[in-house]
Amino acid sequence: MRSEFALLEALRPRLSGDTPHVPLGVGDDAAVVHVAGADVVVAVDALVEGVHFDLAISSHADVGWKALAANVSDLAAVGARTRAALVVLQRPAGFDDAAAEDLYRGLDQAASRWDVALVGGDLVSGPGLAVSVTVLGELVGARPLRRADAIPGQAVVVIGPLGQAAAGLALARAGRHDLLDRHPHLLARHRRPDALAEAGAVLVQVGAGACIDVSDGLGRDAGHVARASGVGLRLRSERLPVDPGVAAAAEALGSDPFDLVCGGGDDLALLATLDPDRLAALDDRLAGLSVAWRQVGTVDEGDGVRLVLPDGRERDVGALGWEHAGDEETDRDR
Amino acid sequence: MRSEFALLEALRPRLSGDTPHVPLGVGDDAAVVHVAGADVVVAVDALVEGVHFDLAISSHADVGWKALAANVSDLAAVGARTRAALVVLQRPAGFDDAAAEDLYRGLDQAASRWDVALVGGDLVSGPGLAVSVTVLGELVGARPLRRADAIPGQAVVVIGPLGQAAAGLALARAGRHDLLDRHPHLLARHRRPDALAEAGAVLVQVGAGACIDVSDGLGRDAGHVARASGVGLRLRSERLPVDPGVAAAAEALGSDPFDLVCGGGDDLALLATLDPDRLAALDDRLAGLSVAWRQVGTVDEGDGVRLVLPDGRERDVGALGWEHAGDEETDRDR
Repeated sequence: MRSEFALLEALRPRLSGDTPHVPLGVGDDAAVVHVAGADVVVAVDALVEGVHFDLAISSHADVGWKALAANVSDLAAVGARTRAALVVLQRPAGFDDAAAEDLYRGLDQAASRWDVALVGGDLVSGPGLAVSVTVLGELVGARPLRRADAIPGQAVVVIGPLGQAAAGLALARAGRHDLLDRHPHLLARHRRPDALAEAGAVLVQVGAGACIDVSDGLGRDAGHVARASGVGLRLRSERLPVDPGVAAAAEALGSDPFDLVCGGGDDLALLATLDPDRLAALDDRLAGLSVAWRQVGTVDEGDGVRLVLPDGRERDVGALGWEHAGDEETDRDR
Repeated sequence: MRSEFALLEALRPRLSGDTPHVPLGVGDDAAVVHVAGADVVVAVDALVEGVHFDLAISSHADVGWKALAANVSDLAAVGARTRAALVVLQRPAGFDDAAAEDLYRGLDQAASRWDVALVGGDLVSGPGLAVSVTVLGELVGARPLRRADAIPGQAVVVIGPLGQAAAGLALARAGRHDLLDRHPHLLARHRRPDALAEAGAVLVQVGAGACIDVSDGLGRDAGHVARASGVGLRLRSERLPVDPGVAAAAEALGSDPFDLVCGGGDDLALLATLDPDRLAALDDRLAGLSVAWRQVGTVDEGDGVRLVLPDGRERDVGALGWEHAGDEETDRDR
């Protein structure tokens, strides 16, 4: 079975490209559709039990929250604000009403957080629990942010945390409750990630180039930008934030902290490129949002994504992260 | 486990009602969302293997077609044209790429049929095959058609076939290939229903009252209109079309043909109410569309849905049809 990426490439001829009705099509985090005289931004994301979440670690309400947050983050990454959502809940036999209500409660909390109207959906029976959320929104500026707009010479910035959710998940799976208790934000980040809706709007206002939300892992998502833009991204390891909880998790699990930082995408951070003379404006506008940001590298004329270590060696991290593969061997929780 | 209807009622407080941003909310076939300065009509429908389709009867391409057709029909029922669609495909382990491509081919054929842009979606692993389609569209008139706008004295009309798809499915399950060969339109109707997009636009143009697409069964869907409008619907059995293939299926299976006509919703017919003096205009405008229509009854001040038999007896058919229940015992293919 092909991976999602390969299959989407094969199916691409069947999907609409940059037609007048579809200013932004398949390949970015969301599509912009010209309908009823307006540019409407739309995205859909599905979470499946056993693939995208584990009910031993997340509650049903957490799953509802995350299903909406992932979509709000997708719209933020194309420079759009989310206005409405539809929810498809697929229930397995025996799934009880209290669990369904809990899941909708989490959705409702996320909807309140980002001022999104839940306008309907569908409720179906199925072999397993899955929740699929479609969101509609509107552009902050005149045009969407795209993956394809990185230009050599631009700075690469990351807004939001990296690797915290992945560290929380890994510690929970390893039963390291001692460390989870000491770093409670790790599991909170996995269960209830914060979609950076306001930061996406700021990126539009300061004239960012390319943008993507880090949902598959920094390495892999940076790779999407490099490929779509025909550029290389060079990241400096000393500029990548290693949260103390992430460092503790890596030590406890015997892994490289940069595997968590570059490979864990669940934090819903935003990666963007930006002309260096706009960095001060970005800093000014993000100051009020209490979200961390930093320049992590630069765009060059090469290709791929390289992590430059302090000793000058380079590591290819463009494949680090979660691949949307179809078979159980390569899927993992995220 | 509660039925879909009961659960949606319980969840309704969490869903947005008729707020300024949501002129038409939960309960109709689609929602109208005010976004980016426009009224955008949106709906979502999911088809799950073993619940909504059987791959022994329908091909993957048929499933793709039907998933989009059901949504185009939902938008037609609120007086809207479908412009764009997003698709979530949930693939079980071992689902092969040829099947995925076949499913997208059916989607693509339906998209061409109704001039819909496929703008993206999501591809996830899961325990079973499911396809969920979200559609965006625009209103034909100034306001949507709603279930709640039936008025006593209006005519009840049905546009499109009734019971053919249900007859085809029942014969296929009974292995009656002799009858399916003699009435090939039955299985075609089950596999590739025709969404009446143009007829929905005509209903707006002639000033129809209430409208719903018949997807759960004429009886049950008429019941939704009666309940939402606070009226009764009185249907006359001799006005309900019994297709020769449906009659043959009912005889072969030892069932009442009206059970198929009133209980089989898969044909994607439209049921609407209309002032009697508009019937001639409806006939004029539908003439060019090669779709059958007829007045099947009237709206009165009572409640529920009654089928009046030739001898004057009445039969309550408001519960006939497919209930969106959550457990395997009450679900069936549709």
